[in-house]
Amino acid sequence: MSDQATTATPTSPPPAPSGPRPKVSNRGRNAVPISSSNSDTADIPEYDYFVAPGPRGYPPLTEYLDIWEVDMLKRPDETNKMEHHTSLYGSDFLIVRRGQEFQIKITFNRPYKPNEDKFAVEFVIGSSPEYSKGTYIPVFPTKERQSSWAGRVVDSSNNVVTMGITPAPDCHVGKYRLYVAVVTPYGIRRTRREKSRDVYILFNPWVAADAVFLDDEEERDECVMNEMGIIYHGAYDDVSERTWNYGQFDYGVLDACLYIMDRAEMPITNRGDPIKVARKASAMLNSRDDEGVLVGNWSGDYTYGVAPTSWTGSTEILLNYSSSKMPVCFAQCWVYAAVFNSFLRCLGIPARVVTNFYSAHDNNGNLKTDIILDENGRIDKKSTLDSIWNYHCWNECHMSRPDLPPGFGGWQAVDATPQETSDGMYRCGPASIQAIKHGQICFPFDAAFVFAEVNSDVVFYSRRRDGTLEPVKVNRAHVGRMILTKAPGLETSRDITEQYKFPEGSTEERTVMEKAEEYGCQREKSEFPEADVDLVLPSLEISVGDDFELSLEFINRSDQIRNVDAYISGSVVYYTGVSSADFLFKTPRVKIEPNSSESTVMQVRSESYMKQLVEQANLHFIVTGKVKETGQIVTAMKVVTMHNPKLSVKVSGMAKLSEEMTVTVEFTNPFSFNLEDVYVRMEGPGILPPKNKYYSLITAGSSLTWSEYFTPRRAGPTRVIASLDCPALRQVYGQESITIKP
Amino acid sequence: MSDQATTATPTSPPPAPSGPRPKVSNRGRNAVPISSSNSDTADIPEYDYFVAPGPRGYPPLTEYLDIWEVDMLKRPDETNKMEHHTSLYGSDFLIVRRGQEFQIKITFNRPYKPNEDKFAVEFVIGSSPEYSKGTYIPVFPTKERQSSWAGRVVDSSNNVVTMGITPAPDCHVGKYRLYVAVVTPYGIRRTRREKSRDVYILFNPWVAADAVFLDDEEERDECVMNEMGIIYHGAYDDVSERTWNYGQFDYGVLDACLYIMDRAEMPITNRGDPIKVARKASAMLNSRDDEGVLVGNWSGDYTYGVAPTSWTGSTEILLNYSSSKMPVCFAQCWVYAAVFNSFLRCLGIPARVVTNFYSAHDNNGNLKTDIILDENGRIDKKSTLDSIWNYHCWNECHMSRPDLPPGFGGWQAVDATPQETSDGMYRCGPASIQAIKHGQICFPFDAAFVFAEVNSDVVFYSRRRDGTLEPVKVNRAHVGRMILTKAPGLETSRDITEQYKFPEGSTEERTVMEKAEEYGCQREKSEFPEADVDLVLPSLEISVGDDFELSLEFINRSDQIRNVDAYISGSVVYYTGVSSADFLFKTPRVKIEPNSSESTVMQVRSESYMKQLVEQANLHFIVTGKVKETGQIVTAMKVVTMHNPKLSVKVSGMAKLSEEMTVTVEFTNPFSFNLEDVYVRMEGPGILPPKNKYYSLITAGSSLTWSEYFTPRRAGPTRVIASLDCPALRQVYGQESITIKP
Repeated sequence: MSDQATTATPTSPPPAPSGPRPKVSNRGRNAVPISSSNSDTADIPEYDYFVAPGPRGYPPLTEYLDIWEVDMLKRPDETNKMEHHTSLYGSDFLIVRRGQEFQIKITFNRPYKPNEDKFAVEFVIGSSPEYSKGTYIPVFPTKERQSSWAGRVVDSSNNVVTMGITPAPDCHVGKYRLYVAVVTPYGIRRTRREKSRDVYILFNPWVAADAVFLDDEEERDECVMNEMGIIYHGAYDDVSERTWNYGQFDYGVLDACLYIMDRAEMPITNRGDPIKVARKASAMLNSRDDEGVLVGNWSGDYTYGVAPTSWTGSTEILLNYSSSKMPVCFAQCWVYAAVFNSFLRCLGIPARVVTNFYSAHDNNGNLKTDIILDENGRIDKKSTLDSIWNYHCWNECHMSRPDLPPGFGGWQAVDATPQETSDGMYRCGPASIQAIKHGQICFPFDAAFVFAEVNSDVVFYSRRRDGTLEPVKVNRAHVGRMILTKAPGLETSRDITEQYKFPEGSTEERTVMEKAEEYGCQREKSEFPEADVDLVLPSLEISVGDDFELSLEFINRSDQIRNVDAYISGSVVYYTGVSSADFLFKTPRVKIEPNSSESTVMQVRSESYMKQLVEQANLHFIVTGKVKETGQIVTAMKVVTMHNPKLSVKVSGMAKLSEEMTVTVEFTNPFSFNLEDVYVRMEGPGILPPKNKYYSLITAGSSLTWSEYFTPRRAGPTRVIASLDCPALRQVYGQESITIKP
Repeated sequence: MSDQATTATPTSPPPAPSGPRPKVSNRGRNAVPISSSNSDTADIPEYDYFVAPGPRGYPPLTEYLDIWEVDMLKRPDETNKMEHHTSLYGSDFLIVRRGQEFQIKITFNRPYKPNEDKFAVEFVIGSSPEYSKGTYIPVFPTKERQSSWAGRVVDSSNNVVTMGITPAPDCHVGKYRLYVAVVTPYGIRRTRREKSRDVYILFNPWVAADAVFLDDEEERDECVMNEMGIIYHGAYDDVSERTWNYGQFDYGVLDACLYIMDRAEMPITNRGDPIKVARKASAMLNSRDDEGVLVGNWSGDYTYGVAPTSWTGSTEILLNYSSSKMPVCFAQCWVYAAVFNSFLRCLGIPARVVTNFYSAHDNNGNLKTDIILDENGRIDKKSTLDSIWNYHCWNECHMSRPDLPPGFGGWQAVDATPQETSDGMYRCGPASIQAIKHGQICFPFDAAFVFAEVNSDVVFYSRRRDGTLEPVKVNRAHVGRMILTKAPGLETSRDITEQYKFPEGSTEERTVMEKAEEYGCQREKSEFPEADVDLVLPSLEISVGDDFELSLEFINRSDQIRNVDAYISGSVVYYTGVSSADFLFKTPRVKIEPNSSESTVMQVRSESYMKQLVEQANLHFIVTGKVKETGQIVTAMKVVTMHNPKLSVKVSGMAKLSEEMTVTVEFTNPFSFNLEDVYVRMEGPGILPPKNKYYSLITAGSSLTWSEYFTPRRAGPTRVIASLDCPALRQVYGQESITIKP
């Protein structure tokens, strides 16, 4: 190696700098920074001259029309908020919806002369206002200067002009600053920035021109205006409910929702598109990738946060996130779905929480969930049952889909629960429900993944000695058994399975499956002769701590005797299908006469499962067996969600606006063991902010009573919801409905 | 507020723990962890008994067939690597491609008896091997046990069996561990793990059953096998080249590519799907979101890393990332595209780098780029020119698209350059080029975004006094002017514009635009009468430091006299279109006779721009003007990329395998100023690993000479590439081609 240089000599490079890497600027990339925060502001000047200063300086523009006062007409009982369905928001600001007129009153120093005076109401959002980006919008009261936002003089009397303003139905959603500008021959003169004149502009499901238009009064009332939700869980044949306070109108929640988009650095210019807003939020509601709102935890250990089963509403979570600017601990699927629902309803996107019973999960969008049996038909516990959740909650939001061919607008599935293999990212949707129903899963976003959640087959394999597997049975009806959401206006559930799937066994269903396979879904193609023996596990409704009987029925539909070697296992599982511990194992041989049935009854004593129970108190029974005469494999599976004790919630008092009332929560430990580290929570929309109390010990058989005074701030029907949660006993709920008189 | 409890008393909750939040386990969510690392291994047992131990322990399985030796036949000159096109990989392991047979030799303790002996060759990948997930694959030599991987005995003589193995054409891509297992009546007995028997299985563009099949020998040779690349840049009418060493076969590069997927925690089960691999890599090649390979920097200040213009190949970057496990500093678009190309070719996915001249960027997938003029037609410098890059590089990779309707397979655009507004995430593609050409931009992934990059209109607006804008001119031909890639087998470029777009003005083009608008793209709809005056800026080829003339031609196509008030501005810009400084401004009034033309000539002296130059030495000229007689707006824009001085690279010696040679790089500072902090780099595929040298000062007019000895390790044509880079002078390149004789 040799170096020569006439004058230039190689030397050692300068030492590498230590310490954290400096932030790289984008000087060579963007002339103007991209505005991605609604809380950033850049003021626009009070004076904008068209002319150079003369010998005596700039001409005094105040000689022209002068602005004395601007009244935002923002009281909850004034027309703006009433007409825009925003009266319920706890907020000191004007909140309106796009594509619909609102009014403000401007007081000038003299009567307004339409032919001489020229003024505009200007709206500014973000730090880089630009007319062409829709982040600076001047609205004129005259016809010839109409931009996408319309303006008109509604009334002009004395010095006061009532100005009607209709924001474009596709304008950015967020908090705008408002100025009134007077245009003179020499320049423009504006009002100074006044915080109290800020305006929130939201999505508008009430107007047809808005992409979130929902043409059904009852559904709008439910999916935009209702704060009180019911989220279904448990088992399809024994459905349980969680009541949830979405709190979308609570003080601070709207700002928290805007903060979420700011935190995601979502460009302001994307915030008028409900597809982009919903997609971004599905990523931001979970903390993966982006320090989003909620930390997922399925471990059973919630020492360092609030157990997912303990929350009763979204308000505390959203306010906590926006004030601490740190992800909130902890969530599981229904918490993600509930808080996501609050976010969507708060911004004006119609939204609901849906629950899919037996939901295929983390299976990479394929239509197969494998269960592996040994040569005798006994289930291999290390198999992949964990990819079927007992239930899974996600959201639907309502919007048009101009990015897709016609027919795929309407309800869209979005999911904020971080899934391991949804395109490798922790977000999902919006996926058109119509596209899912028709197997058109080639369209964005993540339709194939949601399709698999409701349509996967359960494939049973027999494992041979040499390690290879042979498919022996397919259950095409287990997954996606039922999809529920709250019925609009009612306290009951609505079965929306038919919105996701054609009926089992129909021609349409077969066509849809073929379509999905065309788009790359993999299915098990083998066909298996139907066994002539059926196994039936009964539906069970039992409470935690009960002894109970499990009766397994064997039905022989053949004309010959059948002998079945059965393996019956019962295990305690998480709601995700993951098995925690076994408490039952039987291997009966059952002989069944031709065309008759035979039952095996097993006694289950509470001691056998109580010590093993994990949070949602689910028992999973799996029966597999081999028919001796035919070699056919028969199977049955069932999840039993045991019922927990309830909290007693009692409200007393006048139930009248601004009159003090009392709520009392009572609980008696019904078990023979102590409960430790117990949290009790309660809240009620419009009447009681979230409160919680900690009890270090509730001994066996003892009780707690907790009373709180509160003063209703809003009339109408509402509820108090309470939860009790401790490591040994989770998801104990109670509630009481009341109607507050005005 | 009151509390009562018979025995349970509320107490203070335990203090919140301090310190970092503990890692949350997924115990309740996944029974078996999801395997997402190819470097994690879990051994499978040496003995797998079918039977319980007898009184004397387990039966000694060694009495059956015993395995003495396994020969992987992995030398570069043996059939396996020759047939599988993997001889060039610098690796001690067997590397083969899926869907194609390779052979290994197994030596037993006695001759193999097909009717008595039962054995399998087992392949295992990742830490949770499972047959049903394709992460554990036993391959049998007999017909009746064929899984998706085929096996056969090719030859059996004495104790040696030559076994042919054909991996499934859709198997996971990565590094497998290999075992030979003998099946006896009592159990299975395996070889112990032996690192030297690990096998890399890659994508296979040579077989029709693989999703990456490319049915063109010449294209395969280029897009899989060629290490030496040419990346185009500069201006569409004065194209420059960068030579790049992709280095996909260099020692350690294949492992670095697998590490990138491990680092992304990409599930092993996704790694057989080229769509998922390409999409994941487009996210991982940049450091945003995920601590990926390359840190983008467009600031002009590269003090804390290597300037993007200084790199000459991918090897150094990939090896640096996999050894330091830290993102590498710094990249701009061609560096992302080049390293992405290395990754794709290394794994066997056909790939090429393409350059789009005048590429619309960061514009949110819309088809409009706005330029704002004042009332006189003069450009507003604060406008959004920065959303048209002089050029932008991305990648195309070749694969079928089973997730889309038929017709969208083939070349797919992928882009690793982090874009601000591509669906809010820092990744892009794969987007079907066919879908882009036909406006079918509703299909994943990010097709609308790439469509906008090549199809956006430039819309000129006139800004009115009151702040509103009026569109005055649309240029539909500026963006996506030309798309180039290296021609296969040649050293020249290939114009592939017609693969992205129908000809300007054709019926098909109009149909495609309408289609794209159906899918939500926004365009400027106003039509403007064609001006009867044209402005023409000439093509210019000039070198840094030249004085030159800029001649602007005004052509009057009308029968009347035309007067034009023109604004001519010249600025120094980054390649991203961001303006750094102005060096020229003229406002001529030009009178043009009917049906004739008039030229204005401006002298540009080097002093006026030299001090202002930024890295890629681009000058941007914009002319706008207003025709006095008609009020029409006329415009012209042109980027001139000035040519830099060259490095001299000279190779001397025998040019014969394993014979020492010398390379000498020479450079003379042609400027009147000193160059400081100068890095010189050189490398040559197969002959010279990347080397660099630092010179603190090269004074005006002085020279450097740097010689290195090297010993060719491979025969065939190759090159030495060198670069010189310092803050005052970037992207100085030189190269020399040589052919090494065997």
